[in-house]
Amino acid sequence: MKLTILGYHSATPRANANPSSQILEIRNHLFLIDCGEGTQVQLRKFKISFSKIKHIFISHLHGDHVFGLIGLISTFRLLGRTSDLTIHGPKGIKELIEVQLKLSQSKIDYQLIFNELTGDKSQIVFEDNTVKVASIPLNHRIYTNGFLFSEKPSERRLNAPAAREAQIDKAYFSKLKQGFDVINEVGQLVTNEEVTFDPPKTKSYAYCSDTAYHPTIVPLIHGVDCLYHESTFLNEDEELADKTLHSTARQAAEIAKLANVSQLILGHFSSRYDEENHFLLEAKDVFGMTFLAENGKEFVW
Amino acid sequence: MKLTILGYHSATPRANANPSSQILEIRNHLFLIDCGEGTQVQLRKFKISFSKIKHIFISHLHGDHVFGLIGLISTFRLLGRTSDLTIHGPKGIKELIEVQLKLSQSKIDYQLIFNELTGDKSQIVFEDNTVKVASIPLNHRIYTNGFLFSEKPSERRLNAPAAREAQIDKAYFSKLKQGFDVINEVGQLVTNEEVTFDPPKTKSYAYCSDTAYHPTIVPLIHGVDCLYHESTFLNEDEELADKTLHSTARQAAEIAKLANVSQLILGHFSSRYDEENHFLLEAKDVFGMTFLAENGKEFVW
Repeated sequence: MKLTILGYHSATPRANANPSSQILEIRNHLFLIDCGEGTQVQLRKFKISFSKIKHIFISHLHGDHVFGLIGLISTFRLLGRTSDLTIHGPKGIKELIEVQLKLSQSKIDYQLIFNELTGDKSQIVFEDNTVKVASIPLNHRIYTNGFLFSEKPSERRLNAPAAREAQIDKAYFSKLKQGFDVINEVGQLVTNEEVTFDPPKTKSYAYCSDTAYHPTIVPLIHGVDCLYHESTFLNEDEELADKTLHSTARQAAEIAKLANVSQLILGHFSSRYDEENHFLLEAKDVFGMTFLAENGKEFVW
Repeated sequence: MKLTILGYHSATPRANANPSSQILEIRNHLFLIDCGEGTQVQLRKFKISFSKIKHIFISHLHGDHVFGLIGLISTFRLLGRTSDLTIHGPKGIKELIEVQLKLSQSKIDYQLIFNELTGDKSQIVFEDNTVKVASIPLNHRIYTNGFLFSEKPSERRLNAPAAREAQIDKAYFSKLKQGFDVINEVGQLVTNEEVTFDPPKTKSYAYCSDTAYHPTIVPLIHGVDCLYHESTFLNEDEELADKTLHSTARQAAEIAKLANVSQLILGHFSSRYDEENHFLLEAKDVFGMTFLAENGKEFVW
């Protein structure tokens, strides 16, 4: 999996501070997560293929997570997009977009599909052969979901020399990759384990923004390879975090530790702090494998 | 008057191409004209005071002229704005903004006033002691108005040495600036002309985007000090301009010439052209005092 940070600041866009947006790449599929104002310019800046984005996941309807969506949808139209686009997000997102399309008299030529979420329990949001995406109900001032991306096992890998040695016809190779035993050219049974390797370990990613400290999510995200968790505030402003239903860096790290994740990325920083490194120091006190989101930074695992 | 260009490209925002937006300054009042995505970041970049913007004029509801408005309104709220904000624009703009505020559960603490335009004839959009703003009905695919900003005469200027010489009490100076004759300290009438100068000449600005070639506007904008006229296309693509109800650079220059304006600014260039200078050359053939819009460029008259 490869995660590219397009924006990671809270509240208002500024000259070098874009609001929340990320691209997650899983086996050549691109998933856009949140879409603050200016996201389409960030996509261009980091040379990310517009046409490979077929699914967009919106956590909640606060502006810093969604105000860039109508512009992106319009730009797709202007670029002559033909392939379907599915928007997964809270109930209301369909109205949000459709009113704007109606008032600007814009006809979308591609299929625009809305998958509106309403549940307060984790549910499957999207699933195909590559990935399963589940919602992570969060605790914020407005209905909000994080998203858990779990890669599905890919095919077994062929041990080509062993397969040749075992005199297996190439026509059977795809069967082997699917895990079946086969009969070789001299009529003997060859078990799958003899001529294949296990597929690569499946990967996972959890996106949790925006939310108060909410340990209820721990079982859902337990053991993920990478967790993005908002940390709008520092511990010194914990009261403010409580009041606005956001988290501190320390709280984000507590969640990472409780969930035993492999690495934690912090973001959604308030503009009240000049020094983002303070978020890192505070979180690392609790959870060592912590990193800061940065503009255009790629995380690969 | 001082005009600052915040964005002047058509269709989609790109790394160095912001969609339509401008700030017009008239005697320390700031008027924002159109508000494409990213406008608030441009305002910050060019260090323009957010709090001095009390009126926003939106020409039409195509995204490249309005998608930045909801973000700006939200940012004003987050910055603790208390003063009124009036949005002048086509019918529908209230719904466009209010649906987004409702769905994001955002309560605006300042007074947000909508002045929705529906007429197909020029009308007074806004008027105070400083300026009068009239609509300029344009010819585009959707209901669109340009805006004519006409400065009102300011006070007469006091000829201070002459006033002292004429033995006028300072208490009467404001009366003199308002154009009245006064009685001096020894009981004589002093006529206004003896001790004041004419006020500075009033200035005007016309913003015309988006529109097909539309000579009907000529009487409305006749003799303005500065005309911004869209020129999405070059003459070689006149058919495309006709089809999409946009103008070519040559057509914009024809309008400037017919209206006998003092200077013409071209903008709203299509991304199909690599060389913006071609717009300038084409227009200058017809109307010499033509300039290109540029990012952050200030025009003062």
